[in-house]
Amino acid sequence: MSIQSRQLMEQLKVLFEPSSVAVVGASNDPSKWGFRILSNVLSGGFEGKVYAVNPNVPQVLNVGTYPRVTDIPEVPDLVVIVVPPPAVPGVMRDCAAKGVPAVVVITAGFAEVGGEGARLEQEITEIARSGGIRFVGPNCFGILNPHHKLYTQMPPIFPPPGPFGVISQSGNIIGTISRVLIQRAYGCSKCVSIGNQADLTAEDYLEYFAQDPLTKVILCYIEGFKDGVRFFKLAKETSKRKPIVLLKAGHTPAGARAAQSHTASLAGSGAVIDAMCRQAGVIRVRSLDELVDVGIAFLRQPLPKGRRVGVVTAGGGWGVLAADACAEAGLEVVTLPEETVKELDSFMPPWWSRGNPVDLVAGTSGDDLFRAVETVLRCPAVDGVIMLGLMPVMNPGQFGRRSEGDDKDQTRDAMVAGAARTIDRLIEISDRYDKPLVIASEPLGFGSAVNRRIAHAIADRNTVCYEMPHQAAAVFAKLLQYSEYRRQEQ
Amino acid sequence: MSIQSRQLMEQLKVLFEPSSVAVVGASNDPSKWGFRILSNVLSGGFEGKVYAVNPNVPQVLNVGTYPRVTDIPEVPDLVVIVVPPPAVPGVMRDCAAKGVPAVVVITAGFAEVGGEGARLEQEITEIARSGGIRFVGPNCFGILNPHHKLYTQMPPIFPPPGPFGVISQSGNIIGTISRVLIQRAYGCSKCVSIGNQADLTAEDYLEYFAQDPLTKVILCYIEGFKDGVRFFKLAKETSKRKPIVLLKAGHTPAGARAAQSHTASLAGSGAVIDAMCRQAGVIRVRSLDELVDVGIAFLRQPLPKGRRVGVVTAGGGWGVLAADACAEAGLEVVTLPEETVKELDSFMPPWWSRGNPVDLVAGTSGDDLFRAVETVLRCPAVDGVIMLGLMPVMNPGQFGRRSEGDDKDQTRDAMVAGAARTIDRLIEISDRYDKPLVIASEPLGFGSAVNRRIAHAIADRNTVCYEMPHQAAAVFAKLLQYSEYRRQEQ
Repeated sequence: MSIQSRQLMEQLKVLFEPSSVAVVGASNDPSKWGFRILSNVLSGGFEGKVYAVNPNVPQVLNVGTYPRVTDIPEVPDLVVIVVPPPAVPGVMRDCAAKGVPAVVVITAGFAEVGGEGARLEQEITEIARSGGIRFVGPNCFGILNPHHKLYTQMPPIFPPPGPFGVISQSGNIIGTISRVLIQRAYGCSKCVSIGNQADLTAEDYLEYFAQDPLTKVILCYIEGFKDGVRFFKLAKETSKRKPIVLLKAGHTPAGARAAQSHTASLAGSGAVIDAMCRQAGVIRVRSLDELVDVGIAFLRQPLPKGRRVGVVTAGGGWGVLAADACAEAGLEVVTLPEETVKELDSFMPPWWSRGNPVDLVAGTSGDDLFRAVETVLRCPAVDGVIMLGLMPVMNPGQFGRRSEGDDKDQTRDAMVAGAARTIDRLIEISDRYDKPLVIASEPLGFGSAVNRRIAHAIADRNTVCYEMPHQAAAVFAKLLQYSEYRRQEQ
Repeated sequence: MSIQSRQLMEQLKVLFEPSSVAVVGASNDPSKWGFRILSNVLSGGFEGKVYAVNPNVPQVLNVGTYPRVTDIPEVPDLVVIVVPPPAVPGVMRDCAAKGVPAVVVITAGFAEVGGEGARLEQEITEIARSGGIRFVGPNCFGILNPHHKLYTQMPPIFPPPGPFGVISQSGNIIGTISRVLIQRAYGCSKCVSIGNQADLTAEDYLEYFAQDPLTKVILCYIEGFKDGVRFFKLAKETSKRKPIVLLKAGHTPAGARAAQSHTASLAGSGAVIDAMCRQAGVIRVRSLDELVDVGIAFLRQPLPKGRRVGVVTAGGGWGVLAADACAEAGLEVVTLPEETVKELDSFMPPWWSRGNPVDLVAGTSGDDLFRAVETVLRCPAVDGVIMLGLMPVMNPGQFGRRSEGDDKDQTRDAMVAGAARTIDRLIEISDRYDKPLVIASEPLGFGSAVNRRIAHAIADRNTVCYEMPHQAAAVFAKLLQYSEYRRQEQ
């Protein structure tokens, strides 16, 4: 690692793991961002010292205030700035005078509006540079490090610690990604809303997340690259050991115009980005849900060695939709060899489909289902399995009308335990044959509370159960794409 | 209406609105479908007489049994058959002898397995025909008519009464569509799992739903048409007043092979289906979520008169993603005329984007947001608006940390009321200019319970708030497609 890189890593470590945080522009008015950010820092349970800076009131949210950063009795590691644009240079000067190493500038109204804003951005960047300050933004939503209980973001959303490092050029998209992660019972290692990248850039964060042992998969939302050459050079190295999933926005003329006014980004054409992603092993996705869905798949699925898919389905329609989606994604729903069909014949009900998809039809359940999955996954003509519908492996009795005396809590506990056991068995099969087993299913429990618990049980096993058949096919195709990059780079 | 059609309508009315139902093969074993179906009929609250037929036990689920259909003291309007395949012809014969008008054959193992199954299907079809019986299936999940409290389906899922008529060639997909409808706080008018269509076909149900006043939008999942000419002829007429949304599966070779073994369907090529859909005004979608999402849009959105879209967004990234999605869907993110920009300038914060998407940026809220939407929607250069993010119109104070004394129930009630008021105002604006206003937003409330209540409040207004920006663009494009058909057919 170069001296420059080592220094950057140290600077970013202070940014993401500060021992103290000051919020400049802290406010008691709940409609102000200066209220919400301090509130989020406090609600997030940050364990270091928290300072509020506001010259007009003695305290904000029960935190005593200081008139200026220079009045704080220690040097805060991180200063979050939420004052109006014209006041930002003064605060940055105070930070430099105080010796603050890391700053987040939330405030908008800089380069993205042009004119005076661009000038102001230039000014704060120069102050920071000469003062030895590294800063995020301006025009951003803040940063998160759940492992460090650090939440400086604007919306009151608190993803728990988890394996995903998130780099986003849009603040509201940090909110959406966090929400989708939470829905899937996942969390993040670090999140950064990069804003206008006046100082620190997407490339800097990528370099840091590449080194960060708590970040297992990197998720990026990018409108335009500040230094595309460096991004893809870093990505090419990083992808050899850590997957990078990219949602590149602004690839149409309309989207590019929108990106220009949003973050002053010059967006590249779709085809160029596609080619660069391919060369660098970056997995490109098309929507925010796919960004998270594909990201989770990389946590523990063995990578497929080819495009030949076996589909095992508990429902015919889902099987047809998955077969269509596989074909569209370039996967082959392979014809099963005779000996595999024969083996399935030995235990499947007489009316099974005898083809791929293996349609379990109503009536198969329990051990036969695991056996069917294992038989198909073991088959040398198959590189991985898409399994659709976990309902049949759950105890069917629990889905009927129950007698009055039933203990509902016990039933719910049994559902959660049953789901966990099922996932454990499927993971074991997948691991045994070192082939991916991608699952989609209707929710396994009844009621949102029990489904929430099941989602957590599944997430604890570093996997996920997709909701729709086409998602499983799309994810399998992305696993294959990454697998091909990894093999080619070995 | 032809005599034949009139007769069919009467037959289907008895099927969907029976005054009595008998379940043949009713069982006390919770792992049997004969248990689940009777249980669902009872749990669904069917108000007519319910009979259980089983020669081996005196009662099932507290319902006294009869050994055979012929032993039932009245003629049941509807008989649901769940006995093994070889026993079905005998039951069908009993139904004919008894004079039963309508039957649902749940049992699988007929034409879809070929050979003896195909012969059996032929046999039961002939018995039914000569006995004047119309029947659904075989190899199906049953039918639902929530307005009539009739739930004969296999999975224990109970969509409430609602505006959607659902025709599905796959049983498990009826389950998925029902679940997605319930998630969106919607229900259905009637659902039918059509199975092998030995007697009644998708075309028959389409003709019935076209006439049914409670069915406002028809959702179809089809693998292969029994009589494609009749389907599209009916669809062409129906589409002039009632939208039909179609998920056609099996359009790839792999999907077609899966469809063949699933429902013995010969699937047509994608391009042919596309052309027929275009000519008949049928709106074709690509996934189960899209089927429901597009269906809901047709309930109350004014149809756009052109492809020029205004995007009003509370977050920059969402705006860029929506602009990309619009461009990909063939919509034009139009340049706003100078007078519209000027008008927006008069009340927007100085740093607003001055382009389309209209980025409200943090800081705009309340009335200004409604005003921005109205200004763009009123603009003659715009055929409709995609609005992204409703958070800013909610009272921002509610998102911060709250004092201990807050009444949580009051807060929740206020959130629900606020969301309802917001939607009412937006509907009013949309109606005033007779242009569609498609909304996507992060969930408005905190916690799943309050979001559930908000979803219901929104559904009560016959609209929906999509979760992702690309969904709103896709839906707008489908509204336009239908609008073009309607105008061309006028």
